[in-house]
Amino acid sequence: MVSERVVRAVERSLEIRPAKVARQIEGFLRKRLRAAGARGVVVGVSGGVDSSVVAHLCVRALGRKKTWMFFLPERGVTPPEDKRDVRTISKQLGIQVKTIDIAPLLKPFRGVLRPHLLALANLKARIRMCILYYHANARRALVVGTGNRSELRMGYFTKYGDGGCDLLPLGALYKTQVRALARYLGVPQSIIEKTPSAGLWPGQTDEAELGLSYEVLDRVLVALDLGFAPAEIARALHVSLAVVRKVIRREASNQHKLSPPVVPVL
Amino acid sequence: MVSERVVRAVERSLEIRPAKVARQIEGFLRKRLRAAGARGVVVGVSGGVDSSVVAHLCVRALGRKKTWMFFLPERGVTPPEDKRDVRTISKQLGIQVKTIDIAPLLKPFRGVLRPHLLALANLKARIRMCILYYHANARRALVVGTGNRSELRMGYFTKYGDGGCDLLPLGALYKTQVRALARYLGVPQSIIEKTPSAGLWPGQTDEAELGLSYEVLDRVLVALDLGFAPAEIARALHVSLAVVRKVIRREASNQHKLSPPVVPVL
Repeated sequence: MVSERVVRAVERSLEIRPAKVARQIEGFLRKRLRAAGARGVVVGVSGGVDSSVVAHLCVRALGRKKTWMFFLPERGVTPPEDKRDVRTISKQLGIQVKTIDIAPLLKPFRGVLRPHLLALANLKARIRMCILYYHANARRALVVGTGNRSELRMGYFTKYGDGGCDLLPLGALYKTQVRALARYLGVPQSIIEKTPSAGLWPGQTDEAELGLSYEVLDRVLVALDLGFAPAEIARALHVSLAVVRKVIRREASNQHKLSPPVVPVL
Repeated sequence: MVSERVVRAVERSLEIRPAKVARQIEGFLRKRLRAAGARGVVVGVSGGVDSSVVAHLCVRALGRKKTWMFFLPERGVTPPEDKRDVRTISKQLGIQVKTIDIAPLLKPFRGVLRPHLLALANLKARIRMCILYYHANARRALVVGTGNRSELRMGYFTKYGDGGCDLLPLGALYKTQVRALARYLGVPQSIIEKTPSAGLWPGQTDEAELGLSYEVLDRVLVALDLGFAPAEIARALHVSLAVVRKVIRREASNQHKLSPPVVPVL
Protein backbone atom coordinates (compact mmCIF):
# COMPACT_ATOMS: atom_id res chain seq x y z
CA MET A 1 0.00 0.00 0.00
CA VAL A 2 1.13 3.53 -0.75
CA SER A 3 0.51 4.79 2.80
CA GLU A 4 2.80 2.16 4.27
CA ARG A 5 5.50 3.08 1.78
CA VAL A 6 5.21 6.77 2.77
CA VAL A 7 5.38 6.00 6.48
CA ARG A 8 8.37 3.68 6.08
CA ALA A 9 10.29 6.18 3.95
CA VAL A 10 9.57 9.01 6.36
CA GLU A 11 10.62 7.03 9.43
CA ARG A 12 13.82 5.99 7.73
CA SER A 13 14.61 9.62 6.81
CA LEU A 14 14.04 10.80 10.36
CA GLU A 15 16.40 8.26 11.92
CA ILE A 16 19.76 9.66 12.93
CA ARG A 17 22.96 8.17 14.32
CA PRO A 18 23.40 10.57 17.25
CA ALA A 19 27.11 9.88 17.87
CA LYS A 20 27.93 10.63 14.24
CA VAL A 21 25.71 13.72 14.12
CA ALA A 22 27.23 15.08 17.33
CA ARG A 23 30.71 14.59 15.90
CA GLN A 24 29.77 16.36 12.67
CA ILE A 25 28.25 19.36 14.45
CA GLU A 26 31.21 19.64 16.79
CA GLY A 27 33.55 19.67 13.80
CA PHE A 28 31.37 22.32 12.16
CA LEU A 29 31.59 24.57 15.25
CA ARG A 30 35.37 24.25 15.50
CA LYS A 31 35.88 24.87 11.80
CA ARG A 32 33.61 27.91 11.68
CA LEU A 33 35.17 29.47 14.75
CA ARG A 34 38.60 29.09 13.26
CA ALA A 35 37.51 30.44 9.86
CA ALA A 36 36.02 33.53 11.51
CA GLY A 37 39.03 34.07 13.74
CA ALA A 38 36.59 34.27 16.65
CA ARG A 39 37.55 33.81 20.27
CA GLY A 40 34.49 31.83 21.34
CA VAL A 41 30.75 31.49 21.09
CA VAL A 42 27.82 33.21 22.77
CA VAL A 43 24.73 31.05 23.33
CA GLY A 44 21.36 32.13 24.66
CA VAL A 45 19.92 29.33 26.77
CA SER A 46 16.28 29.08 27.78
CA GLY A 47 15.98 25.78 29.60
CA GLY A 48 14.45 24.21 26.49
CA VAL A 49 15.76 21.19 24.64
CA ASP A 50 17.22 23.02 21.65
CA SER A 51 19.39 25.45 23.59
CA SER A 52 20.41 22.69 26.03
CA VAL A 53 21.64 20.58 23.12
CA VAL A 54 23.47 23.56 21.60
CA ALA A 55 25.14 24.31 24.94
CA HIS A 56 26.28 20.69 25.23
CA LEU A 57 27.63 20.66 21.67
CA CYS A 58 29.51 23.95 22.11
CA VAL A 59 31.20 22.79 25.31
CA ARG A 60 32.09 19.45 23.72
CA ALA A 61 33.47 21.16 20.61
CA LEU A 62 35.19 24.20 22.08
CA GLY A 63 35.52 23.62 25.78
CA ARG A 64 34.18 25.56 28.74
CA LYS A 65 36.38 28.62 28.32
CA LYS A 66 35.18 29.48 24.84
CA THR A 67 31.46 29.01 25.52
CA TRP A 68 29.61 31.97 27.03
CA MET A 69 26.07 31.15 28.10
CA PHE A 70 23.35 33.73 28.69
CA PHE A 71 19.90 33.25 30.14
CA LEU A 72 17.61 36.15 29.24
CA PRO A 73 14.32 35.65 31.07
CA GLU A 74 11.53 38.20 31.40
CA ARG A 75 10.43 38.72 34.98
CA GLY A 76 6.77 37.83 35.34
CA VAL A 77 6.61 35.96 32.03
CA THR A 78 9.35 33.31 32.02
CA PRO A 79 8.18 30.31 34.10
CA PRO A 80 10.32 29.37 37.15
CA GLU A 81 10.98 25.86 35.79
CA ASP A 82 13.02 27.42 32.97
CA LYS A 83 15.39 28.96 35.49
CA ARG A 84 15.67 25.59 37.24
CA ASP A 85 16.37 23.80 33.95
CA VAL A 86 18.99 26.35 32.95
CA ARG A 87 20.68 25.77 36.31
CA THR A 88 20.63 22.03 35.69
CA ILE A 89 22.40 22.43 32.35
CA SER A 90 24.85 24.91 33.83
CA LYS A 91 25.79 22.41 36.56
CA GLN A 92 25.91 19.51 34.14
CA LEU A 93 28.36 21.37 31.90
CA GLY A 94 30.26 23.03 34.72
CA ILE A 95 29.96 26.50 33.23
CA GLN A 96 28.50 29.74 34.55
CA VAL A 97 25.40 31.21 32.99
CA LYS A 98 24.99 34.97 33.06
CA THR A 99 21.36 35.96 33.67
CA ILE A 100 19.95 39.27 32.43
CA ASP A 101 16.27 40.08 32.97
CA ILE A 102 14.92 41.75 29.84
CA ALA A 103 11.91 43.35 31.59
CA PRO A 104 13.77 46.56 32.54
CA LEU A 105 15.15 46.80 29.00
CA LEU A 106 11.68 46.47 27.50
CA LYS A 107 10.11 49.05 29.76
CA PRO A 108 11.24 52.26 28.01
CA PHE A 109 10.21 50.77 24.65
CA ARG A 110 6.71 50.30 26.01
CA GLY A 111 6.69 53.99 26.83
CA VAL A 112 7.24 55.10 23.23
CA LEU A 113 5.46 52.32 21.29
CA ARG A 114 1.75 51.59 21.05
CA PRO A 115 0.81 48.19 22.54
CA HIS A 116 0.67 45.42 19.93
CA LEU A 117 0.88 41.75 20.96
CA LEU A 118 2.74 40.36 17.95
CA ALA A 119 5.09 43.33 17.58
CA LEU A 120 5.90 43.15 21.28
CA ALA A 121 6.60 39.40 21.14
CA ASN A 122 9.01 39.99 18.26
CA LEU A 123 10.60 42.92 20.10
CA LYS A 124 11.45 40.62 23.00
CA ALA A 125 13.24 38.20 20.68
CA ARG A 126 15.10 41.12 19.07
CA ILE A 127 16.18 42.57 22.40
CA ARG A 128 17.62 39.18 23.30
CA MET A 129 19.53 39.20 20.01
CA CYS A 130 20.85 42.71 20.86
CA ILE A 131 22.24 41.47 24.19
CA LEU A 132 23.83 38.36 22.72
CA TYR A 133 25.49 40.38 19.96
CA TYR A 134 26.67 43.02 22.43
CA HIS A 135 28.61 40.35 24.26
CA ALA A 136 29.74 38.68 21.06
CA ASN A 137 31.00 41.99 19.63
CA ALA A 138 32.76 42.87 22.87
CA ARG A 139 34.49 39.44 23.06
CA ARG A 140 35.01 38.90 19.33
CA ALA A 141 32.80 35.82 19.55
CA LEU A 142 30.15 34.32 17.27
CA VAL A 143 26.49 34.10 18.20
CA VAL A 144 25.29 30.53 17.99
CA GLY A 145 21.55 30.21 17.40
CA THR A 146 19.37 27.40 18.65
CA GLY A 147 16.85 27.09 15.82
CA ASN A 148 16.13 23.65 14.41
CA ARG A 149 15.09 22.62 10.90
CA SER A 150 11.38 22.37 11.77
CA GLU A 151 11.37 25.98 12.99
CA LEU A 152 13.50 27.23 10.12
CA ARG A 153 11.25 25.67 7.49
CA MET A 154 8.09 26.98 9.13
CA GLY A 155 9.63 30.40 9.75
CA TYR A 156 8.73 29.86 13.40
CA PHE A 157 11.15 32.45 14.75
CA THR A 158 11.55 36.22 14.75
CA LYS A 159 13.38 37.73 11.80
CA TYR A 160 16.51 39.42 13.22
CA GLY A 161 15.45 38.17 16.66
CA ASP A 162 16.15 34.53 17.53
CA GLY A 163 16.70 34.18 13.76
CA GLY A 164 19.59 36.64 14.08
CA CYS A 165 22.77 34.65 14.70
CA ASP A 166 25.97 33.56 12.98
CA LEU A 167 25.74 29.77 13.15
CA LEU A 168 22.82 27.37 13.39
CA PRO A 169 24.28 24.04 14.52
CA LEU A 170 20.83 22.41 14.73
CA GLY A 171 19.61 23.88 11.44
CA ALA A 172 19.79 20.54 9.65
CA LEU A 173 17.89 18.58 12.32
CA TYR A 174 14.14 18.34 12.79
CA LYS A 175 12.81 18.84 16.30
CA THR A 176 12.25 15.10 16.77
CA GLN A 177 15.86 14.49 15.72
CA VAL A 178 17.08 17.13 18.18
CA ARG A 179 15.30 15.18 20.91
CA ALA A 180 17.13 12.00 19.86
CA LEU A 181 20.42 13.89 19.97
CA ALA A 182 19.50 15.33 23.39
CA ARG A 183 19.03 11.79 24.75
CA TYR A 184 22.44 10.78 23.42
CA LEU A 185 24.09 13.84 24.99
CA GLY A 186 22.53 13.18 28.36
CA VAL A 187 20.22 16.19 28.51
CA PRO A 188 17.81 15.52 31.42
CA GLN A 189 14.56 13.80 30.43
CA SER A 190 12.47 16.58 32.02
CA ILE A 191 13.98 19.10 29.60
CA ILE A 192 13.51 16.79 26.62
CA GLU A 193 9.86 16.24 27.46
CA LYS A 194 9.03 19.85 28.32
CA THR A 195 6.31 21.42 26.18
CA PRO A 196 8.15 23.53 23.57
CA SER A 197 7.52 27.28 23.92
CA ALA A 198 9.07 30.44 22.54
CA GLY A 199 8.18 31.99 25.90
CA LEU A 200 7.04 35.29 24.44
CA TRP A 201 3.83 35.40 26.48
CA PRO A 202 2.58 33.33 29.42
CA GLY A 203 1.17 29.98 28.33
CA GLN A 204 2.52 30.21 24.77
CA THR A 205 3.28 26.83 23.18
CA ASP A 206 4.83 26.20 19.78
CA GLU A 207 2.42 23.43 18.91
CA ALA A 208 -0.71 25.50 19.61
CA GLU A 209 0.67 28.26 17.43
CA LEU A 210 1.79 25.95 14.63
CA GLY A 211 -1.47 24.02 14.78
CA LEU A 212 0.13 20.57 14.98
CA SER A 213 2.65 18.61 17.02
CA TYR A 214 6.32 18.44 16.03
CA GLU A 215 5.94 14.65 15.63
CA VAL A 216 3.41 15.24 12.87
CA LEU A 217 4.94 18.42 11.45
CA ASP A 218 8.35 16.79 11.01
CA ARG A 219 6.81 13.83 9.22
CA VAL A 220 4.86 16.11 6.88
CA LEU A 221 8.02 18.10 6.10
CA VAL A 222 10.09 14.99 5.44
CA ALA A 223 7.34 13.47 3.27
CA LEU A 224 7.21 16.68 1.22
CA ASP A 225 10.99 16.54 0.80
CA LEU A 226 10.70 12.95 -0.38
CA GLY A 227 8.38 14.15 -3.12
CA PHE A 228 5.14 12.54 -1.99
CA ALA A 229 1.92 14.28 -3.04
CA PRO A 230 -0.05 16.24 -0.42
CA ALA A 231 -3.02 13.85 -0.67
CA GLU A 232 -0.77 10.80 -0.15
CA ILE A 233 0.88 12.47 2.82
CA ALA A 234 -2.43 13.39 4.42
CA ARG A 235 -3.66 9.81 4.07
CA ALA A 236 -0.47 8.16 5.32
CA LEU A 237 0.01 10.46 8.32
CA HIS A 238 -3.68 10.71 9.26
CA VAL A 239 -3.88 14.47 8.92
CA SER A 240 -6.24 16.54 6.83
CA LEU A 241 -5.21 17.74 3.40
CA ALA A 242 -5.77 21.27 4.69
CA VAL A 243 -3.03 20.78 7.28
CA VAL A 244 -0.53 19.62 4.66
CA ARG A 245 -1.42 22.56 2.45
CA LYS A 246 -1.02 24.95 5.36
CA VAL A 247 2.49 23.63 6.00
CA ILE A 248 3.38 24.14 2.33
CA ARG A 249 1.97 27.68 2.32
CA ARG A 250 3.64 28.64 5.57
CA GLU A 251 7.02 27.43 4.39
CA ALA A 252 6.74 29.40 1.15
CA SER A 253 5.50 32.63 2.71
CA ASN A 254 8.20 32.69 5.40
CA GLN A 255 11.17 32.04 3.13
CA HIS A 256 12.14 35.71 3.34
CA LYS A 257 12.87 35.44 7.06
CA LEU A 258 16.25 33.82 6.55
CA SER A 259 17.08 35.40 3.22
CA PRO A 260 19.23 38.51 2.81
CA PRO A 261 17.29 41.72 2.10
CA VAL A 262 16.12 41.91 -1.50
CA VAL A 263 18.06 44.18 -3.86
CA PRO A 264 16.56 45.29 -7.19
CA VAL A 265 18.21 44.16 -10.41
CA LEU A 266 19.07 47.30 -12.39
CA MET B 1 47.82 53.10 -22.07
CA VAL B 2 46.40 50.57 -19.66
CA SER B 3 45.65 53.16 -16.94
CA GLU B 4 43.54 55.21 -19.32
CA ARG B 5 41.62 52.13 -20.38
CA VAL B 6 40.91 51.29 -16.71
CA VAL B 7 39.75 54.83 -15.92
CA ARG B 8 37.51 55.00 -19.00
CA ALA B 9 35.90 51.62 -18.30
CA VAL B 10 35.31 52.51 -14.66
CA GLU B 11 33.76 55.88 -15.45
CA ARG B 12 31.49 54.30 -18.04
CA SER B 13 30.36 51.66 -15.51
CA LEU B 14 29.58 54.26 -12.88
CA GLU B 15 27.39 56.36 -15.17
CA ILE B 16 23.66 55.93 -14.59
CA ARG B 17 20.53 57.25 -16.29
CA PRO B 18 18.78 58.54 -13.17
CA ALA B 19 15.26 58.70 -14.65
CA LYS B 20 15.46 55.07 -15.73
CA VAL B 21 16.99 53.93 -12.45
CA ALA B 22 14.33 55.77 -10.42
CA ARG B 23 11.61 54.11 -12.51
CA GLN B 24 13.16 50.67 -12.00
CA ILE B 25 13.46 51.07 -8.24
CA GLU B 26 9.93 52.41 -7.94
CA GLY B 27 8.67 49.36 -9.84
CA PHE B 28 10.70 47.11 -7.55
CA LEU B 29 9.13 48.67 -4.44
CA ARG B 30 5.58 48.32 -5.77
CA LYS B 31 6.13 44.73 -6.90
CA ARG B 32 7.72 43.64 -3.63
CA LEU B 33 5.03 45.26 -1.53
CA ARG B 34 2.33 43.47 -3.51
CA ALA B 35 4.15 40.13 -3.38
CA ALA B 36 4.46 40.37 0.40
CA GLY B 37 0.86 41.48 0.82
CA ALA B 38 2.20 44.35 2.93
CA ARG B 39 0.29 47.53 3.70
CA GLY B 40 3.17 49.95 3.38
CA VAL B 41 6.81 50.60 4.14
CA VAL B 42 8.71 51.79 7.19
CA VAL B 43 11.82 53.88 6.50
CA GLY B 44 14.35 55.14 9.01
CA VAL B 45 15.58 58.56 7.88
CA SER B 46 18.71 60.22 9.20
CA GLY B 47 19.06 63.42 7.19
CA GLY B 48 21.73 61.77 5.05
CA VAL B 49 21.65 61.37 1.29
CA ASP B 50 20.86 57.63 1.22
CA SER B 51 17.77 57.76 3.42
CA SER B 52 16.60 60.98 1.74
CA VAL B 53 16.74 59.23 -1.64
CA VAL B 54 14.94 56.16 -0.26
CA ALA B 55 12.21 58.36 1.23
CA HIS B 56 11.75 60.10 -2.11
CA LEU B 57 11.58 56.81 -4.01
CA CYS B 58 9.08 55.28 -1.56
CA VAL B 59 6.74 58.26 -1.78
CA ARG B 60 7.02 58.29 -5.58
CA ALA B 61 6.39 54.55 -5.79
CA LEU B 62 3.75 54.05 -3.12
CA GLY B 63 2.40 57.47 -2.20
CA ARG B 64 2.39 59.35 1.07
CA LYS B 65 -0.11 57.13 2.84
CA LYS B 66 1.91 53.94 2.56
CA THR B 67 5.25 55.46 3.58
CA TRP B 68 5.94 55.72 7.30
CA MET B 69 9.07 57.69 8.10
CA PHE B 70 10.95 57.50 11.40
CA PHE B 71 13.81 59.64 12.64
CA LEU B 72 15.68 57.91 15.47
CA PRO B 73 18.29 60.33 16.79
CA GLU B 74 20.30 59.95 19.96
CA ARG B 75 20.13 62.98 22.20
CA GLY B 76 23.60 64.42 22.72
CA VAL B 77 25.12 62.48 19.81
CA THR B 78 23.06 63.21 16.69
CA PRO B 79 24.09 66.62 15.32
CA PRO B 80 21.34 69.29 15.08
CA GLU B 81 21.79 69.65 11.31
CA ASP B 82 20.46 66.11 10.87
CA LYS B 83 17.18 67.12 12.49
CA ARG B 84 17.02 70.15 10.22
CA ASP B 85 17.72 68.02 7.13
CA VAL B 86 15.09 65.47 8.10
CA ARG B 87 12.60 68.31 8.47
CA THR B 88 13.54 69.57 5.00
CA ILE B 89 12.86 66.15 3.44
CA SER B 90 9.64 65.80 5.43
CA LYS B 91 8.39 69.16 4.10
CA GLN B 92 9.57 68.42 0.58
CA LEU B 93 7.62 65.14 0.52
CA GLY B 94 4.68 66.44 2.52
CA ILE B 95 4.76 63.56 5.00
CA GLN B 96 5.11 63.46 8.75
CA VAL B 97 8.19 62.01 10.35
CA LYS B 98 7.86 60.35 13.74
CA THR B 99 10.87 61.11 15.95
CA ILE B 100 11.94 58.73 18.72
CA ASP B 101 15.05 59.52 20.78
CA ILE B 102 16.96 56.29 21.37
CA ALA B 103 18.93 57.63 24.38
CA PRO B 104 16.28 56.57 26.96
CA LEU B 105 16.05 53.13 25.30
CA LEU B 106 19.81 52.67 25.47
CA LYS B 107 20.10 53.70 29.09
CA PRO B 108 18.97 50.45 30.81
CA PHE B 109 21.25 48.44 28.48
CA ARG B 110 24.20 50.50 29.70
CA GLY B 111 23.26 49.46 33.23
CA VAL B 112 23.64 45.74 32.53
CA LEU B 113 26.41 45.73 29.92
CA ARG B 114 30.09 46.56 30.34
CA PRO B 115 31.15 49.62 28.30
CA HIS B 116 32.59 48.71 24.90
CA LEU B 117 32.78 51.29 22.11
CA LEU B 118 32.23 49.00 19.11
CA ALA B 119 29.59 46.84 20.78
CA LEU B 120 27.73 49.96 21.88
CA ALA B 121 27.83 51.47 18.39
CA ASN B 122 26.35 48.26 16.99
CA LEU B 123 23.74 48.17 19.76
CA LYS B 124 22.50 51.59 18.69
CA ALA B 125 22.00 50.41 15.14
CA ARG B 126 20.21 47.29 16.42
CA ILE B 127 17.90 49.27 18.68
CA ARG B 128 16.93 51.38 15.69
CA MET B 129 16.16 48.16 13.80
CA CYS B 130 13.99 46.99 16.73
CA ILE B 131 11.92 50.18 16.59
CA LEU B 132 11.47 50.09 12.82
CA TYR B 133 10.38 46.44 12.95
CA TYR B 134 8.04 47.09 15.85
CA HIS B 135 6.16 49.58 13.70
CA ALA B 136 6.41 47.38 10.62
CA ASN B 137 5.04 44.34 12.50
CA ALA B 138 2.23 46.39 14.03
CA ARG B 139 1.22 47.84 10.61
CA ARG B 140 1.98 44.80 8.49
CA ALA B 141 4.55 46.83 6.61
CA LEU B 142 8.01 46.09 5.20
CA VAL B 143 11.18 47.69 6.52
CA VAL B 144 13.04 49.42 3.72
CA GLY B 145 16.76 49.77 4.37
CA THR B 146 18.94 52.58 3.11
CA GLY B 147 22.23 50.77 2.49
CA ASN B 148 23.98 51.30 -0.82
CA ARG B 149 26.22 48.97 -2.81
CA SER B 150 29.45 50.54 -1.54
CA GLU B 151 28.41 49.89 2.07
CA LEU B 152 27.08 46.42 1.33
CA ARG B 153 30.26 45.32 -0.39
CA MET B 154 32.47 46.72 2.37
CA GLY B 155 30.20 45.34 5.09
CA TYR B 156 30.04 48.89 6.38
CA PHE B 157 26.87 48.38 8.41
CA THR B 158 25.78 46.55 11.54
CA LYS B 159 24.68 42.94 11.08
CA TYR B 160 21.02 42.77 12.16
CA GLY B 161 21.19 46.52 12.79
CA ASP B 162 20.94 48.85 9.80
CA GLY B 163 21.65 45.68 7.79
CA GLY B 164 18.39 44.23 9.17
CA CYS B 165 15.63 45.12 6.71
CA ASP B 166 13.37 43.54 4.10
CA LEU B 167 14.26 45.51 0.98
CA LEU B 168 17.36 47.40 -0.08
CA PRO B 169 16.27 49.67 -2.94
CA LEU B 170 19.73 51.28 -3.21
CA GLY B 171 21.59 47.99 -2.89
CA ALA B 172 22.60 47.98 -6.54
CA LEU B 173 23.92 51.56 -6.57
CA TYR B 174 27.32 52.78 -5.44
CA LYS B 175 27.39 55.84 -3.19
CA THR B 176 28.48 58.11 -6.05
CA GLN B 177 25.53 56.81 -8.10
CA VAL B 178 23.16 57.45 -5.21
CA ARG B 179 24.35 61.06 -5.25
CA ALA B 180 23.56 61.32 -8.96
CA LEU B 181 20.10 59.88 -8.29
CA ALA B 182 19.64 62.34 -5.41
CA ARG B 183 20.32 65.26 -7.74
CA TYR B 184 17.74 63.96 -10.20
CA LEU B 185 15.14 63.53 -7.44
CA GLY B 186 15.68 67.06 -6.17
CA VAL B 187 17.24 66.19 -2.80
CA PRO B 188 18.72 69.48 -1.48
CA GLN B 189 22.36 70.05 -2.35
CA SER B 190 23.30 70.49 1.33
CA ILE B 191 22.17 66.94 2.05
CA ILE B 192 23.94 65.54 -1.01
CA GLU B 193 27.20 67.23 -0.02
CA LYS B 194 27.03 66.42 3.70
CA THR B 195 29.94 64.35 5.01
CA PRO B 196 28.63 60.75 5.22
CA SER B 197 28.40 59.42 8.78
CA ALA B 198 26.79 56.44 10.46
CA GLY B 199 26.29 58.78 13.43
CA LEU B 200 27.20 56.17 16.02
CA TRP B 201 29.54 58.48 17.93
CA PRO B 202 30.19 62.22 17.72
CA GLY B 203 32.44 63.14 14.81
CA GLN B 204 32.24 59.70 13.17
CA THR B 205 32.67 59.78 9.40
CA ASP B 206 32.37 56.87 6.99
CA GLU B 207 35.41 57.87 5.00
CA ALA B 208 37.73 58.11 8.01
CA GLU B 209 36.59 54.66 9.10
CA LEU B 210 36.85 53.12 5.65
CA GLY B 211 40.20 54.78 5.04
CA LEU B 212 39.31 56.28 1.66
CA SER B 213 36.69 58.48 0.02
CA TYR B 214 33.61 57.01 -1.65
CA GLU B 215 34.78 58.51 -4.96
CA VAL B 216 37.90 56.36 -4.79
CA LEU B 217 36.30 53.34 -3.11
CA ASP B 218 33.55 53.09 -5.72
CA ARG B 219 36.10 53.23 -8.52
CA VAL B 220 38.21 50.51 -6.90
CA LEU B 221 35.14 48.30 -6.47
CA VAL B 222 34.00 48.78 -10.06
CA ALA B 223 37.50 48.16 -11.39
CA LEU B 224 37.67 44.92 -9.42
CA ASP B 225 34.29 43.90 -10.88
CA LEU B 226 35.59 44.62 -14.34
CA GLY B 227 38.37 42.14 -13.71
CA PHE B 228 41.37 44.48 -13.64
CA ALA B 229 44.36 43.37 -11.59
CA PRO B 230 45.03 45.08 -8.23
CA ALA B 231 48.31 46.55 -9.49
CA GLU B 232 46.63 48.02 -12.60
CA ILE B 233 43.86 49.47 -10.46
CA ALA B 234 46.28 51.05 -8.01
CA ARG B 235 48.21 52.67 -10.85
CA ALA B 236 45.15 53.91 -12.74
CA LEU B 237 43.35 55.32 -9.71
CA HIS B 238 46.46 56.72 -8.00
CA VAL B 239 46.05 54.70 -4.81
CA SER B 240 48.52 52.37 -3.17
CA LEU B 241 48.38 48.66 -3.83
CA ALA B 242 47.85 48.20 -0.09
CA VAL B 243 44.57 50.15 -0.30
CA VAL B 244 43.26 47.96 -3.13
CA ARG B 245 44.23 44.85 -1.23
CA LYS B 246 42.51 46.16 1.90
CA VAL B 247 39.29 46.65 -0.05
CA ILE B 248 39.51 43.08 -1.37
CA ARG B 249 40.16 41.67 2.10
CA ARG B 250 37.42 43.71 3.74
CA GLU B 251 34.85 42.62 1.18
CA ALA B 252 35.74 38.96 1.67
CA SER B 253 35.81 39.01 5.45
CA ASN B 254 32.45 40.80 5.76
CA GLN B 255 30.50 38.57 3.36
CA HIS B 256 28.83 36.84 6.32
CA LYS B 257 27.08 40.03 7.37
CA LEU B 258 24.38 39.72 4.71
CA SER B 259 24.32 35.93 4.48
CA PRO B 260 21.86 33.70 6.32
CA PRO B 261 23.28 31.96 9.41
CA VAL B 262 25.44 28.98 8.46
CA VAL B 263 23.93 25.51 8.88
CA PRO B 264 26.14 22.39 8.95
CA VAL B 265 25.82 19.85 6.17
CA LEU B 266 25.04 16.51 7.80
